[in-house]
Amino acid sequence: QSLRVGLIPADGIGHEVIPAARDALLALGSSIPKPQFVDLLAGFDLFTRTGEALPEETVQALTNDCDCALFGAVSSPSQKVAGYTSPIVALRKKLDLYANIRPVSSVSEIPGQPPKVDLMVVRENTECLYVKQETMTTGEHGKEARATRLITERASRRIGKMAFEMALLRPKKQVTIIHKSNVLSVTDGLFRETVRGVPKLPEVAGKYDSVTIAEQIVDSAVYRLFREPEIFDVMVAPNLYGDILSDAAAALVGSLGLVPSVNAGDKFVMGEPVHGSAPDIAGKNIANPIAAIRSAALMLRHLGYPDGADRIDKAVDEVLRGDPLALTPDLGGKGTTKAVTDAILKLI
Amino acid sequence: QSLRVGLIPADGIGHEVIPAARDALLALGSSIPKPQFVDLLAGFDLFTRTGEALPEETVQALTNDCDCALFGAVSSPSQKVAGYTSPIVALRKKLDLYANIRPVSSVSEIPGQPPKVDLMVVRENTECLYVKQETMTTGEHGKEARATRLITERASRRIGKMAFEMALLRPKKQVTIIHKSNVLSVTDGLFRETVRGVPKLPEVAGKYDSVTIAEQIVDSAVYRLFREPEIFDVMVAPNLYGDILSDAAAALVGSLGLVPSVNAGDKFVMGEPVHGSAPDIAGKNIANPIAAIRSAALMLRHLGYPDGADRIDKAVDEVLRGDPLALTPDLGGKGTTKAVTDAILKLI
Ligand SMILES: CC(C)[C@H](C(=O)O)[C@@H](O)C(=O)O
Ligand SMILES: CC(C)[C@H](C(=O)O)[C@@H](O)C(=O)O
Repeated sequence: QSLRVGLIPADGIGHEVIPAARDALLALGSSIPKPQFVDLLAGFDLFTRTGEALPEETVQALTNDCDCALFGAVSSPSQKVAGYTSPIVALRKKLDLYANIRPVSSVSEIPGQPPKVDLMVVRENTECLYVKQETMTTGEHGKEARATRLITERASRRIGKMAFEMALLRPKKQVTIIHKSNVLSVTDGLFRETVRGVPKLPEVAGKYDSVTIAEQIVDSAVYRLFREPEIFDVMVAPNLYGDILSDAAAALVGSLGLVPSVNAGDKFVMGEPVHGSAPDIAGKNIANPIAAIRSAALMLRHLGYPDGADRIDKAVDEVLRGDPLALTPDLGGKGTTKAVTDAILKLI
Repeated sequence: QSLRVGLIPADGIGHEVIPAARDALLALGSSIPKPQFVDLLAGFDLFTRTGEALPEETVQALTNDCDCALFGAVSSPSQKVAGYTSPIVALRKKLDLYANIRPVSSVSEIPGQPPKVDLMVVRENTECLYVKQETMTTGEHGKEARATRLITERASRRIGKMAFEMALLRPKKQVTIIHKSNVLSVTDGLFRETVRGVPKLPEVAGKYDSVTIAEQIVDSAVYRLFREPEIFDVMVAPNLYGDILSDAAAALVGSLGLVPSVNAGDKFVMGEPVHGSAPDIAGKNIANPIAAIRSAALMLRHLGYPDGADRIDKAVDEVLRGDPLALTPDLGGKGTTKAVTDAILKLI
């Protein structure tokens, strides 16, 4: 038996951190089915070279030849570029990876102690303003641009279910619904009511009784996240709020270079570090490989290999508890991508 | 000559902090034209009593009988309430108060020293998702809700101009455009290009040459705001991003209870603390009056009375530099609204 893993470094430091994540999977040996890697193309660089940001072959290979995938990061053009559309946003929709799961935890100083920050953003991944239905017209006073924000009952229900499932696995078992229904009473009202209704669905009868439900308006959620992160456990949010909240949460644990995610659907899961392609440091061997390595672990967890995931996460925790100067510069250290990766591999 | 000030406490702690701001204006004596106060109604409480959240008389009185106003805060219903719509969102639009100006600064320990956090959010105040054009339909898989996000060239240009005007008054003279044009290339693309184009408009030729322009994608902006607030000066943002960013920035200075704002148009200005109505602490005489008092100062600044504004701000700074235990509980103190207000009034 083997585990077929699509590898899509995409742009910038994606080319440095995805190989690190691959090596972490290899280091697990027989804890998981033998990984077989499929190298795949996507990204803004690819677009500038070929006119295609997400080749159909990549989508086909993921669908037909892979059990899961690891995605690096994409660069965003600094100007509007005709014909370019973000391949990661497209992939999430094409593979129906409707949940973007982003755990944000600090590492406790002493193993076994509860971490100071320990929360998870469960971000809806297919709709909201990301449907990219935009129009431009010219009115009396100049140009007028409009975008559609779509919130459906179906997508809100399945992301709500995912949030309750995640909460069941956590000690605190709390789901906080993030919305702005004081302004968007129809769209965010639907999101809120649908998620609130999940535990009452006949097919999950009783299953989520142990989970408490809270809610926060998005602006206040960001404020409280910084002031009292301990009030949160699982935060479930429409796409754009989830995007902003997960970056905000990353600031709490010291670096975006630490925060992993998976894009999960019912049939496929794709690990992806939350950070971007960081063109300013690309190719310098100083990118933090931890977010990508932890994304591989998170992917294993979602595939049903918790032992492999635990081995990776424990190795990372130990490195983070070690010499701070050995870490990468985003964490104040002087370490290289390669040195940090090697230290982790040795401990796996 | 007199200064006619509409007072709209609205809900919750608005009834405690707006009187404090009024007293601060009175304490200025002859530094400003003699204030004449006009008490006006609005709010969710009013709605539950009368069915109206923003009576037409309030709008008329503001338009015809007032030179400026101070608004408290509104409560948001915890469920969708038929017929209720936020009176503050409505007022901003009805009076065309297109700019929401939110300076967020910490107070340096030693007078004269530069503060650690010193930035300003200039938030577009009339469009984006706040146009509240929402529809609900039923599709194959259940309910589908849609909201329109409107970004116009006209509104982007005038908020851009306001941002450049604000930057001219500040030592750093930098405008950072906040957007998400990597996903919303049409709407946020229009916002970005229009703001970038402001310095090139013939009517301002050369005026903003000393201002540098930067930009940040909104998720990354929130992250960097927490990690390196010193990279920002004036942040100009579409409505919803500005809403979130200003709460995020407030967390940096220790409390939402410190952050003032004005809603400014070409003909009218309305001060408003950034905090909400805080129903949990309403009526307890522990709400922080500083955000409201500073909003009165900011209003004076925009009306062209910088001396009065400076006197208020200096008094507040001195109180903040004083005994921490004398401050309100949001800042870790044991002081009351009344005691903090009195301390400020004595110093004005
Ligand atoms: C690159 C961008 C399109 C993307 C998003 O907005 O989803 C990124 O910010 C993320 O969080 O994965
Ligand atoms: C109460 C709410 C409608 C309002 C807003 O979203 O503008 C508030 O959050 C604010 O920032 O003034």
